[in-house]
Amino acid sequence: MIKVGIVGGTGYTGVELLRLLAQHPAVEIVAITSRGDAGVPVSSMFPSLRGRVGLKFEDPSVANLEACDVVFFATPNGVAMQQAPGLLESGVRVIDLAADFRITDIAEWEKWYGMQHASPDWVAKAVYGLPELNRVAIQNARLVANPGCYPTAVQLGFMPLVESGLVDTSHLIADAKSGVSGAGRKAEVSSLFSEASDNFKAYGVSGHRHLPEIRQGLSRIAGTSVGLTFVPHLTPVIRGIHATLYAQMTEDADFQALYESRYANELFVDVMPAKSHPDTRSVRASNTCRIAIHRPQGGDMLVILSVVDNLVKGAAGQAIQNMNIMFGLAETEGLWQLPVLP
Amino acid sequence: MIKVGIVGGTGYTGVELLRLLAQHPAVEIVAITSRGDAGVPVSSMFPSLRGRVGLKFEDPSVANLEACDVVFFATPNGVAMQQAPGLLESGVRVIDLAADFRITDIAEWEKWYGMQHASPDWVAKAVYGLPELNRVAIQNARLVANPGCYPTAVQLGFMPLVESGLVDTSHLIADAKSGVSGAGRKAEVSSLFSEASDNFKAYGVSGHRHLPEIRQGLSRIAGTSVGLTFVPHLTPVIRGIHATLYAQMTEDADFQALYESRYANELFVDVMPAKSHPDTRSVRASNTCRIAIHRPQGGDMLVILSVVDNLVKGAAGQAIQNMNIMFGLAETEGLWQLPVLP
Amino acid sequence: MIKVGIVGGTGYTGVELLRLLAQHPAVEIVAITSRGDAGVPVSSMFPSLRGRVGLKFEDPSVANLEACDVVFFATPNGVAMQQAPGLLESGVRVIDLAADFRITDIAEWEKWYGMQHASPDWVAKAVYGLPELNRVAIQNARLVANPGCYPTAVQLGFMPLVESGLVDTSHLIADAKSGVSGAGRKAEVSSLFSEASDNFKAYGVSGHRHLPEIRQGLSRIAGTSVGLTFVPHLTPVIRGIHATLYAQMTEDADFQALYESRYANELFVDVMPAKSHPDTRSVRASNTCRIAIHRPQGGDMLVILSVVDNLVKGAAGQAIQNMNIMFGLAETEGLWQLPVLP
Amino acid sequence: MIKVGIVGGTGYTGVELLRLLAQHPAVEIVAITSRGDAGVPVSSMFPSLRGRVGLKFEDPSVANLEACDVVFFATPNGVAMQQAPGLLESGVRVIDLAADFRITDIAEWEKWYGMQHASPDWVAKAVYGLPELNRVAIQNARLVANPGCYPTAVQLGFMPLVESGLVDTSHLIADAKSGVSGAGRKAEVSSLFSEASDNFKAYGVSGHRHLPEIRQGLSRIAGTSVGLTFVPHLTPVIRGIHATLYAQMTEDADFQALYESRYANELFVDVMPAKSHPDTRSVRASNTCRIAIHRPQGGDMLVILSVVDNLVKGAAGQAIQNMNIMFGLAETEGLWQLPVLP
Repeated sequence: MIKVGIVGGTGYTGVELLRLLAQHPAVEIVAITSRGDAGVPVSSMFPSLRGRVGLKFEDPSVANLEACDVVFFATPNGVAMQQAPGLLESGVRVIDLAADFRITDIAEWEKWYGMQHASPDWVAKAVYGLPELNRVAIQNARLVANPGCYPTAVQLGFMPLVESGLVDTSHLIADAKSGVSGAGRKAEVSSLFSEASDNFKAYGVSGHRHLPEIRQGLSRIAGTSVGLTFVPHLTPVIRGIHATLYAQMTEDADFQALYESRYANELFVDVMPAKSHPDTRSVRASNTCRIAIHRPQGGDMLVILSVVDNLVKGAAGQAIQNMNIMFGLAETEGLWQLPVLP
Repeated sequence: MIKVGIVGGTGYTGVELLRLLAQHPAVEIVAITSRGDAGVPVSSMFPSLRGRVGLKFEDPSVANLEACDVVFFATPNGVAMQQAPGLLESGVRVIDLAADFRITDIAEWEKWYGMQHASPDWVAKAVYGLPELNRVAIQNARLVANPGCYPTAVQLGFMPLVESGLVDTSHLIADAKSGVSGAGRKAEVSSLFSEASDNFKAYGVSGHRHLPEIRQGLSRIAGTSVGLTFVPHLTPVIRGIHATLYAQMTEDADFQALYESRYANELFVDVMPAKSHPDTRSVRASNTCRIAIHRPQGGDMLVILSVVDNLVKGAAGQAIQNMNIMFGLAETEGLWQLPVLP
Repeated sequence: MIKVGIVGGTGYTGVELLRLLAQHPAVEIVAITSRGDAGVPVSSMFPSLRGRVGLKFEDPSVANLEACDVVFFATPNGVAMQQAPGLLESGVRVIDLAADFRITDIAEWEKWYGMQHASPDWVAKAVYGLPELNRVAIQNARLVANPGCYPTAVQLGFMPLVESGLVDTSHLIADAKSGVSGAGRKAEVSSLFSEASDNFKAYGVSGHRHLPEIRQGLSRIAGTSVGLTFVPHLTPVIRGIHATLYAQMTEDADFQALYESRYANELFVDVMPAKSHPDTRSVRASNTCRIAIHRPQGGDMLVILSVVDNLVKGAAGQAIQNMNIMFGLAETEGLWQLPVLP
Repeated sequence: MIKVGIVGGTGYTGVELLRLLAQHPAVEIVAITSRGDAGVPVSSMFPSLRGRVGLKFEDPSVANLEACDVVFFATPNGVAMQQAPGLLESGVRVIDLAADFRITDIAEWEKWYGMQHASPDWVAKAVYGLPELNRVAIQNARLVANPGCYPTAVQLGFMPLVESGLVDTSHLIADAKSGVSGAGRKAEVSSLFSEASDNFKAYGVSGHRHLPEIRQGLSRIAGTSVGLTFVPHLTPVIRGIHATLYAQMTEDADFQALYESRYANELFVDVMPAKSHPDTRSVRASNTCRIAIHRPQGGDMLVILSVVDNLVKGAAGQAIQNMNIMFGLAETEGLWQLPVLP
């Protein structure tokens, strides 16, 4: 059994890790920490876990995380860069679900996240945990930077096009829509039911923190700096991201075949028949990304639709997929639940 | 492996049976029928099953249901009473998720369901499939009448009180709220998003079909005819039933202990600490019923809160729980998924 | 023109007062105060008011509220009892939308609201602002205690029955469901979209602050202390309260006629045909209360359904209705908007 | 008083016309027709109108529409082209809320709407009813083709850019999101609460009927054929359209000033401060279109956000705005209600 620790388990990413890990056949959850809620049984905060998860939140200072094989950080940005290095040096492997180790350009990271980076050397050693791109490197990673939710949906959607060199990468557009759980379990007016329900809006059009992450990923794939306009929106669903991607083709090709071939061996990426419309609920509570390719009216603009559950493939599920790869398990272990529909 | 057939799999109960049975380790789904959609791959109607359920809907006339060990009827009321007897006589065991075999008083059934009963003799042989009440009889049942969603939540909530004889059973009140999936996947104006969303209403106050079913169940338990006022409501959630139950005590007792003791060995009934407030999402997509007991202000009125997922413990999950009992499997087999929260 | 001031306009009750008062033909809004947001244009917090409400929030210390004819307090409980007396003594009339002056039994108020009352003498002078009950007293009131949202729906629903003496008032039950805006615009985890959406739950079953208010009101009407079980629930709608009321009849009568007659002259109470099911959206954004009467199965239990918009008839609209009465205007002035459906 | 008739009043556009017209000070609703619901009081189908609209639906054959000054067609596509010409020849002015007279290229219309056009000559005489573009022509129009909901939001959003000639009009992108009421009050599985709630999806990416309408409008403004990729999505809100528009600039300019100047005299178009994010609820139940202009990261891609209520500015409200213009009333008459928020 893999001994697992979770740092910061009181948010949505944390409870989703618990839901999935508690059902994972090869995992034993050893400790879960929370500074503010130490002593509280996990199941009294999340009654969905009653009778199934017996742990209490522990204060980080007393939790024996060094005894774990792997520790997941489900903390706000800026925590893992402080606390992970100690664990890493003790030989514990770490998967960070926050943004601390995602951006390799430290100055860029500091600009977008508004703080000084505490551990630039570990940024250099971290592996960006998108298995469909970095599977081999993940196997031996000591530190995995788990991708953001938008970056997962957008990169999986654009990847075959950018790899192929068949589109103009200087004017890519990602019009993305996220469910409200993406904002976390923080008490903020803008996330209130009476604000977010029966309402739709864009936000962060001037610049969202996931922009540099996506741009970095696509630029690496392209081998050159890409131009990207990224517009996130808030839609009144709990879970789910829908990315609508626009790219102008520079050369004709069978794009459907391109995608099917690229993802033929990926168990968590489903390329739907041409002209399909994946809906977010078709991946709800599952680790799957579904993609559909369109070329409307036979013109030169390609439209790619890509959906994920932001808490699963966009966070906790992908983190466990990375853990499975790191520990030599089948990639689907503990992650093969069917989506919940309706 | 248990060979399973499903008759009428295009509704929400049908797709939920598929979701759960496809992940059940002891089951092989042999056939699923639909008159209107014969030939259509199940996964093209329900993309959440893509890559995981390879079946096509078959016309009932060609599906080889006689080869099944058990057939689930997820059909509208009035179908199973026509088609189940033939299968039963071939030795196939049947679990009917509709209402055809739930009410033993044929005249009463015909009054509420507005049609003549085609198979009164099988009504007499059917076992009412509420495991917490009828476990032993279910083991050897050839035909199980799976309870309705409201009746499951209401009967589990009232059962310990009515068994104990400590309340006035002549004026029981069940104020119940259901998610919209309870109305099925039928195209009806009243179930449209723009009608049901951001809205709350009662319906069927004059008389709902689940009233005689609940009354029959509670009267059997009480050993005498109970008086029940049942008011169903529609709340804008997809899945979930919340029953708020009122009973006037006739004698003092430790009601919390009564419930805990009654359900001590029931894996799918969770009696919460006194004064808890179970929410429907705490059982979403799971087979659990959560119950909390209140006695406000120390008065003589007891308030019991009982929640289930109408598609799982209120339909498909309970049907599979019955199947597990009928075939000697662990009752939780294939049903031990944690609720999806948020 | 009536000169109006609003104290505490940054919550949902405040913005609803603004929406309605800005369209009221006999009103001039002179000042709106907010300690935390002084200087901020109202329309930058609530873009729905852009181009139509030019006011800025003012600090309470500088706002010239004494120059107003009437001041609405849309503040948290405990503020008006501090600040209203000074205004009242300057001759300004006050309508308090919070609970400070609703309960005449000071000890009872202090028990439920957890603070010492700062102005018991003004409690004695305040008029409870339910026009359908207290219209004459409201005309000359200096201080109106505007009813709570649940109390409005429940009292209007029970009033004819309790006045008639035809039911057992020792075991009244009010099973009430509220939209999430009833919890206000406070940043709290329990009101987050990802918590409250696609979910249903009861809360405060042990005792909710509106219980003593309703009990006081119904007891006054009955002329004797009534017994009431009040169970509030949270339903995922923005606006709306649905009260399902249960009373056991002690004598037969034409209850439909009773209600129609009682409310024949009430422009904001609509008694629907017998056996109707009012939905909350049928009063959305309007000052109407709709009521339907049921006697299921011809038994002895009456079921009354009563719906209001908690922000209008349950708060801001009723406050303006009270203002209209106090200033001799037509009661419907500025309040005659049709509900928004769908 | 303007004598108004409504043909086909049982859909959402119909009930919204009724809500607005019943409160319009210069209008008398003379007749409302429905073949299927003749004889039914309007308020029994829409209880929100109880006590305020006394009309019954009439069979079209008996309704005296010729006595009206203006008739609104709120019918499915293909009805007005059959029935409007007779009324027009009797001197009645007509406003068609469907698509029959919107596209001047008859062959194009027939391709997208799948039927033969019954009245091509009236297409030539019809005025496209976007007041911000065609105000003068509308004044004397006998027949107004009221724009579609998406076309209203998209054209108002793009208009200043396209007029200015400062962007590349060969690759415009409109990523648009609509509330579910845009699909009408038809009983269809895809519009059910349990399908559309807690879900987000694109649809019609291959080609939506509003594409040729938008393309025609923008091409007229540009004076040349524009290239447009239009991707509609369904978001779980009742009312509201959010259009996110992308255009590549070909020349620098003060785009904020351009928009403010273009719409300076438009009472129903609100240009927000630069970098704002209009949300759909900020125009809910009102006739306003709010627009915000972005130029992310100072690049060459402009992002325009444009929101309307699809049932008001996108349908019934704009129709009444057109009526006000046709009859010489103030444009805001009966349309000056503030949005309902929250």
